[in-house]
Amino acid sequence: MEATSYMFGPYKIDKKEVFYSTDFSYALVNLRPLLPVHVLVCPRREVQRFAELTTDETSDLWITAQKVGKQLESYHKASSLTFTIQDGPQAGQTVPHVHIHIIPRKSGDFEKNDEIYDALDVKEKEMKQSLDLDKERKDRSIEEMAEEADEYRKLF
Amino acid sequence: MEATSYMFGPYKIDKKEVFYSTDFSYALVNLRPLLPVHVLVCPRREVQRFAELTTDETSDLWITAQKVGKQLESYHKASSLTFTIQDGPQAGQTVPHVHIHIIPRKSGDFEKNDEIYDALDVKEKEMKQSLDLDKERKDRSIEEMAEEADEYRKLF
Repeated sequence: MEATSYMFGPYKIDKKEVFYSTDFSYALVNLRPLLPVHVLVCPRREVQRFAELTTDETSDLWITAQKVGKQLESYHKASSLTFTIQDGPQAGQTVPHVHIHIIPRKSGDFEKNDEIYDALDVKEKEMKQSLDLDKERKDRSIEEMAEEADEYRKLF
Repeated sequence: MEATSYMFGPYKIDKKEVFYSTDFSYALVNLRPLLPVHVLVCPRREVQRFAELTTDETSDLWITAQKVGKQLESYHKASSLTFTIQDGPQAGQTVPHVHIHIIPRKSGDFEKNDEIYDALDVKEKEMKQSLDLDKERKDRSIEEMAEEADEYRKLF
């Protein structure tokens, strides 16, 4: 089921940035990637908090995240995955639409493992700022993002 | 469905530490809590990686996490939740059994939000060390953990 665009909180996401979708969820490349690979999985329905999702949406979201994580880990020859939901502002959420961060991990990608989270937190803030300023897509061009999404779309 | 004990990787978890369980998942208080509240949700079946879970297990695990998070957030008058899976050693996993960290969050609980993750990472390592040394439960007594679990059990 493909839409022509998707909403991520108040922001419109071009379908070119979306590389996988189901009835309830979609996976998009990140505007400000943390490592070369860092994607988001969101429910199609805009809700801020994880607890607002129905059981069908919750199941679908995580089965999607599982599938996406597995494919990207293998494709990028990684060996582990970080999955995080910053669920609510006091947990670092900036865009008020549930989203799972998925980051394939390799030995030595960060000097200390926990640095990934510092970086994640900074990126979440930057993502919001970027989306706010994003009329001109100064971060990554839509072409660049579309290219990454095209590449991942083939995996599913 | 209640078992007399649960396995967490190679470690036996006393049912007193478990405050909620379903056919596929269980929730336990943490041996080395990060904040006063920090619990884990695990699949009953011992698998190391998230992708090894069946769709039924995956759905149940996250519906359980959603329920546990919601109840603990409200009970502890928090306003957000951190959910994380460190899926594999390169993501900081120490015990080779899938587990979701759930941490209710409040304004100002950490000076900077990302400090939660530094702390999480340290705690994951300490948890492993503790479980390894844990014959005598030097961290938190079984009584103390049982008390916390009793308190949470009433919420479900």
